[in-house]
Amino acid sequence: MLGFRLNTHQQWLGRRLSDHGYRVSRQTAIPDNGPEIESAVQESLARADLIITTGGLGPTSDDITRDLIANLLNRKLRDDAGTLRRLDEFFAARQRETPERVKVQAQTPEGAIVLQNNHGTAPGLAIEVAPNPFREDNRPAWLIMLPGPPRELYPMFDELVIPLLKRELPLGRDYACRNLRTTGLGESLVEESLASALADLVQDGLEIHYCLCPGGVDVRLACDGPRAGETVQAAEQIARAEIGKIIFGADDELLEEGVVTLLAKAGATLALAESCTGGLIAHRVTNIPGASHVLLAGFVTYSNEAKQKSLGVRDETLAEHGAVSEPTAREMAEGARRESGADYAIAVTGIAGPSGGSPEKPVGTVFVGLASQRKTVVMKFFNPYDRETFKQITSQQALEMLRRRLRKDQAPPKNPSA
Amino acid sequence: MLGFRLNTHQQWLGRRLSDHGYRVSRQTAIPDNGPEIESAVQESLARADLIITTGGLGPTSDDITRDLIANLLNRKLRDDAGTLRRLDEFFAARQRETPERVKVQAQTPEGAIVLQNNHGTAPGLAIEVAPNPFREDNRPAWLIMLPGPPRELYPMFDELVIPLLKRELPLGRDYACRNLRTTGLGESLVEESLASALADLVQDGLEIHYCLCPGGVDVRLACDGPRAGETVQAAEQIARAEIGKIIFGADDELLEEGVVTLLAKAGATLALAESCTGGLIAHRVTNIPGASHVLLAGFVTYSNEAKQKSLGVRDETLAEHGAVSEPTAREMAEGARRESGADYAIAVTGIAGPSGGSPEKPVGTVFVGLASQRKTVVMKFFNPYDRETFKQITSQQALEMLRRRLRKDQAPPKNPSA
Repeated sequence: MLGFRLNTHQQWLGRRLSDHGYRVSRQTAIPDNGPEIESAVQESLARADLIITTGGLGPTSDDITRDLIANLLNRKLRDDAGTLRRLDEFFAARQRETPERVKVQAQTPEGAIVLQNNHGTAPGLAIEVAPNPFREDNRPAWLIMLPGPPRELYPMFDELVIPLLKRELPLGRDYACRNLRTTGLGESLVEESLASALADLVQDGLEIHYCLCPGGVDVRLACDGPRAGETVQAAEQIARAEIGKIIFGADDELLEEGVVTLLAKAGATLALAESCTGGLIAHRVTNIPGASHVLLAGFVTYSNEAKQKSLGVRDETLAEHGAVSEPTAREMAEGARRESGADYAIAVTGIAGPSGGSPEKPVGTVFVGLASQRKTVVMKFFNPYDRETFKQITSQQALEMLRRRLRKDQAPPKNPSA
Repeated sequence: MLGFRLNTHQQWLGRRLSDHGYRVSRQTAIPDNGPEIESAVQESLARADLIITTGGLGPTSDDITRDLIANLLNRKLRDDAGTLRRLDEFFAARQRETPERVKVQAQTPEGAIVLQNNHGTAPGLAIEVAPNPFREDNRPAWLIMLPGPPRELYPMFDELVIPLLKRELPLGRDYACRNLRTTGLGESLVEESLASALADLVQDGLEIHYCLCPGGVDVRLACDGPRAGETVQAAEQIARAEIGKIIFGADDELLEEGVVTLLAKAGATLALAESCTGGLIAHRVTNIPGASHVLLAGFVTYSNEAKQKSLGVRDETLAEHGAVSEPTAREMAEGARRESGADYAIAVTGIAGPSGGSPEKPVGTVFVGLASQRKTVVMKFFNPYDRETFKQITSQQALEMLRRRLRKDQAPPKNPSA
């Protein structure tokens, strides 16, 4: 709650649950504080069929979730013999006596299912609250308490919670979803391009969400019910027909992942010459395992001297057109390709700001060059944002230029007889 | 809610609010869905003095927060003339007509304060709910709606929301906090080094939080009450005496920021030779405005050929010791310095994984070289983590080596008469 840690549980559990068709209707974060935990659990029981808590099951004094929930549900706590035995085994394997304070983790509310923890000491607990006194209609709910550390939480969720949900809270309906990732068009333009084409399917129950993310818009297609799979599939086909050119991937795929895959598929290599993106494109590409097979070299050439020395940009070009110019971007791309021997080279030169702009070349001006054996192309963009956003968006534009070129170069010839 | 995006707002806002002495008692995430938004806002109004919402103010059909809240509070929506004018200016600057659908963003609930958006089109809105019909005692609350995109949210929060809070919801007590950023020592060791030295101040009301973050541990010192300022200041002095060497900055300061500042102060320049970090160090350094004055060149030399050609690493060195070795790191650093003419050069070569390891050099092995006129030093680290964590931690270690060298080189001579 102090803002020192990212809430990665929310994303991880949300993704797992939605993959299995469960709809998360609320996520709440609260401090380690009795009244806050109690009211959050109580309010959740009043509205949801499934409540998952994480954390607060350990042996320290601020681990109070188990006790609070047992108390809230009026269930006595009893030692679970299996858990006590596993605690002894856990510590015996580490040549230690079981510390007295960790034995609290064997305390189990009456009627709870114990979820064995194979990666730590605190087991999870699953309780069917039936009837549910907190819900107006007394409709039953499942309350599942899981440990906080990801390396304990993740396997416990996949191995024990998902099977329990399928058994105790089956969906009883079909569900399908698909995420299409786009770049190069604003959120409202993407929506405009799709709204009318998908209108019929929306009538049939298709849900569309548009999510702005750095350098692009994700289009999430989801559907519930007997024709879920077909509906989402049909929606994807229509979306691809309408805006296929700007869709760079599906679900979780990253733009740089697609680029590395396309390069690897073609057995082609890449070089980078970055001025204003300062290494971000290289960083993104090298985040992808296997990048070492396709990326030959990257040059971060902030200074004119580096542009000349590493990439062979000519004095006259810099003197006549300046470092941020179409001819410089061209020579940088061609130089990077020549120096490294790579098949493709991207070059970026621009003004990230906050200073360095001029009336003719304001902050945000950027030229992206793309060189290959076939030709060199330079595109001009205008990204008048803060420095980090500028770098992020510019790197996205450069990688997208490359992705489209690779797609084109790898497309089968239009006239096979030619 | 579908698990496609990390909730970074929670962390960012939590941090900003706690730095200013405001306590976050609950954070709730909900889908873009009318009843869910309505009940979450209503429940928040029933218990909090300040409610901040993010997102849902844009021009697409699922941006419904503004309308729902106006409706919940029984406030008519009216066009705000200033916002309409700024929308026109925003699109004029981009040589476009203002699209009809974005004009919905000028809709403003009666009595709301408009928070101008200098980085996007949707303004924020602040409403004083007084009396507050959702709270038993009708105690007033402030409801503040902010745009979702971080580059719009962050500056709006700092420039407009914080001053508004100080004016309308003053703390009414002294509060001080200070965050000391360390790198190179584990969480429990940092705590051990400080616990007894700070014990007396904890008695006086000092709160200490240890927060693990990528590549380091933050130590947050906070205090409430009439002696808050003195207490935190005294605590910082003690902490610096105990672990000053590993403290690289305070509050939000980044390690790369300190490095750029130290280089600029010395009028010194830098070159980078990155293999396994793949441009991340260059990216981090170039995120800092003014980096162009100190960073002469960066080389991303993934392949042996690039290490030879760009940095002059010798055939024999690669053949005899391999690319991931002390001698290669040394030659890379010296080569980057020689090729670029920079005063300092950092070189990194290691095995990021997931593949490429061997029994003698397992995944996670990395050598960092640091060259200057004075000498070249190579340190070996072992970072057996996933690829991205490996890159992050390695870049932290390399920058910290440079920071310490710069501090040393810039320290006044120990014996001024010598």
